[in-house]
Amino acid sequence: MGMQSFNPPIRTLMGPGPSDVHPRILEAMSRPTIGHLDPVFVEMMEEVKGLLQYAFQTENVLTMPISAPGSAGMESCFVNLVEPGDKVIVCQNGVFGGRMKENVERSGGVAVMVQDAWGNAVDPQKVEDALKANPDAKILAFVQAETSTGAESDSKTLCELARKHDCLTIVDAVTALGGTPIKVDEWQIDAIYSGTQKCLSCTPGLSPVSFSERALDKIKNRKSKVQSWFLDLNLVMGYWGSGAKRAYHHTAPINALYALHEALVMLKNEGLENAWARHRKNHEVLKAGLEAMGLTFIVPEDQRLPQLNAVSIPEGVDDALVRSRLLNEFNLEIGAGLGDLAGKVWRIGLMGHSSRAENILLCIGALEAVLSDMQAPINRGVALGAMQSAISG
Amino acid sequence: MGMQSFNPPIRTLMGPGPSDVHPRILEAMSRPTIGHLDPVFVEMMEEVKGLLQYAFQTENVLTMPISAPGSAGMESCFVNLVEPGDKVIVCQNGVFGGRMKENVERSGGVAVMVQDAWGNAVDPQKVEDALKANPDAKILAFVQAETSTGAESDSKTLCELARKHDCLTIVDAVTALGGTPIKVDEWQIDAIYSGTQKCLSCTPGLSPVSFSERALDKIKNRKSKVQSWFLDLNLVMGYWGSGAKRAYHHTAPINALYALHEALVMLKNEGLENAWARHRKNHEVLKAGLEAMGLTFIVPEDQRLPQLNAVSIPEGVDDALVRSRLLNEFNLEIGAGLGDLAGKVWRIGLMGHSSRAENILLCIGALEAVLSDMQAPINRGVALGAMQSAISG
Repeated sequence: MGMQSFNPPIRTLMGPGPSDVHPRILEAMSRPTIGHLDPVFVEMMEEVKGLLQYAFQTENVLTMPISAPGSAGMESCFVNLVEPGDKVIVCQNGVFGGRMKENVERSGGVAVMVQDAWGNAVDPQKVEDALKANPDAKILAFVQAETSTGAESDSKTLCELARKHDCLTIVDAVTALGGTPIKVDEWQIDAIYSGTQKCLSCTPGLSPVSFSERALDKIKNRKSKVQSWFLDLNLVMGYWGSGAKRAYHHTAPINALYALHEALVMLKNEGLENAWARHRKNHEVLKAGLEAMGLTFIVPEDQRLPQLNAVSIPEGVDDALVRSRLLNEFNLEIGAGLGDLAGKVWRIGLMGHSSRAENILLCIGALEAVLSDMQAPINRGVALGAMQSAISG
Repeated sequence: MGMQSFNPPIRTLMGPGPSDVHPRILEAMSRPTIGHLDPVFVEMMEEVKGLLQYAFQTENVLTMPISAPGSAGMESCFVNLVEPGDKVIVCQNGVFGGRMKENVERSGGVAVMVQDAWGNAVDPQKVEDALKANPDAKILAFVQAETSTGAESDSKTLCELARKHDCLTIVDAVTALGGTPIKVDEWQIDAIYSGTQKCLSCTPGLSPVSFSERALDKIKNRKSKVQSWFLDLNLVMGYWGSGAKRAYHHTAPINALYALHEALVMLKNEGLENAWARHRKNHEVLKAGLEAMGLTFIVPEDQRLPQLNAVSIPEGVDDALVRSRLLNEFNLEIGAGLGDLAGKVWRIGLMGHSSRAENILLCIGALEAVLSDMQAPINRGVALGAMQSAISG
């Protein structure tokens, strides 16, 4: 008897990503593989670029997916824009600001940290102070949508401050893209990266990025070579650049790009504003249910991401047991806490195709069933009623 | 009317990769996405590691797929093993040795080049001379299967030489794995990387790697941090390491890993020796047809890779036109020349699922039809007969 194929269980994914992938996208991914230099494929690449420009609300020519997950997209921004000795102001209000610091330092830069409490947005006043105190800073880096806490920072304001102090901006939009407004051109963001497995509801593995002309100038005029060959945009552009003539750089992940194309077509057809409104509406419904049960959000109301809801775990409740019972009894995945918040919070994602009324009912129902069975201190039998008005409202 | 889905044409892929992907693998890829920390997914990861150990013929614990294409797998070897100032002997007999040099230098190392003609294997004598002349060299790096020329170098002998001179080895096996023997433990290779889209016949996007204990010691005892956060094996191991406890590092490309699992299951069930023999046999058949037509290989007979056949383009023949007619009239993709060989050779791949008798008949038939129609100087009407004895032999 030989080895067996792998047949995954059918889960509902309401963690911090991957989110549920629409069957249309899975089906697109399984279409026959063609060559990465096939003219038909190159045409599709052009469409992907155009669709990403729409998603990012930009006309940046250098807008494309990096052939690796979001953390490689992050790295592509830092290794291309940071030169040895460059000072970078990094805002940290969760796990991913810390990863930015790592990226700055491994790129030979100097990170100046601006700290905010985990669960809060980045404080623009602290950023302005740091910019004033460091007139030699070249770049401001921050996370718009902090996946570890569910807090959203004000990209528009932070980018204005950076420009005022002649800094480029690097913005983490991994959990933001498609779920909450991002306006790259209007806000004049210089470099931004995202992931496919969050509000785009695509399979994980690619990282959409976009770079402004200002960023591009810096990359073209570097004194030193980019330390990564794989992520050197001077080379990647030869393949993703415009025109029919494409230079081989690396072999693109063809089928993953079919999937991204389909996900972006679905976003375009829904309309960005409609997608943002859907994420907002479903957040309100989930919030009504969670709060009726007595669970509390860790992020102040006006700083919450609709697509990622972090709530405190009630006193005395066994975190891991709750999550494994949800998984085993209801095939429902919610997210654990990350970093300093491990064991303290659950992260409930309503991203992309996961942001649906039926998922909310499943999540609230399953959570109430498991917590009740475990004698947790929650209010019972009131969540569904509380959600009704949010659903109709 | 909204944006349209992308429906690729059905091609036969006989270039240097991607190769034809078996429908079983495409179907596996489209199974429902589950979480990257789901216990069921972690079990599958363990199977993937075991199957890769089989494919590489190794018991190396650190054997896994990097979440990005082969060029990132290459980079993972260099950024982890090369420290600033390290001297690395790099053999170049095609495009990919040049990429290794780039990787050494961007990692802060010093590359000592050993040059051989494009189309020839690496000359062990030159390597031994370089090792003697550079007693401070730390690493020997070479390409076992040079995808730009179709030449195979003798990994076993080169690794013996490296060990004799106390060097670690980095081996490029992108086009080799699954098509031609690789014996990581027997040959004592220290670091090896491959790709999924060649003889494994999987979709592109992942890079299987394996590292020996000796390599692992060097990585753990580095004086400087690895310059790439995404590829730092000290961190990646936290996710791919053994045991039930996995630390989040990056979001794994779930569905791509379903596909790789399926491809490796198929390889295991066929048996490595059988896969090697199939690639060898089909090469003999293709060779009989090509040579009967009068086309000549650029690689000496005893140095040829069975899975990648580079032949000179006959005098006066329009390279691009031939390839585009094959694509447009027969949906057949063959490879162009790369680097110094652009416009001079065609590269015909017989990799993985593409290595089938029916593909060879299509390729020879289509090539003869197009070249005849273009009045190219070839022998007509003899290829099929010439292949008969190779087919039955």
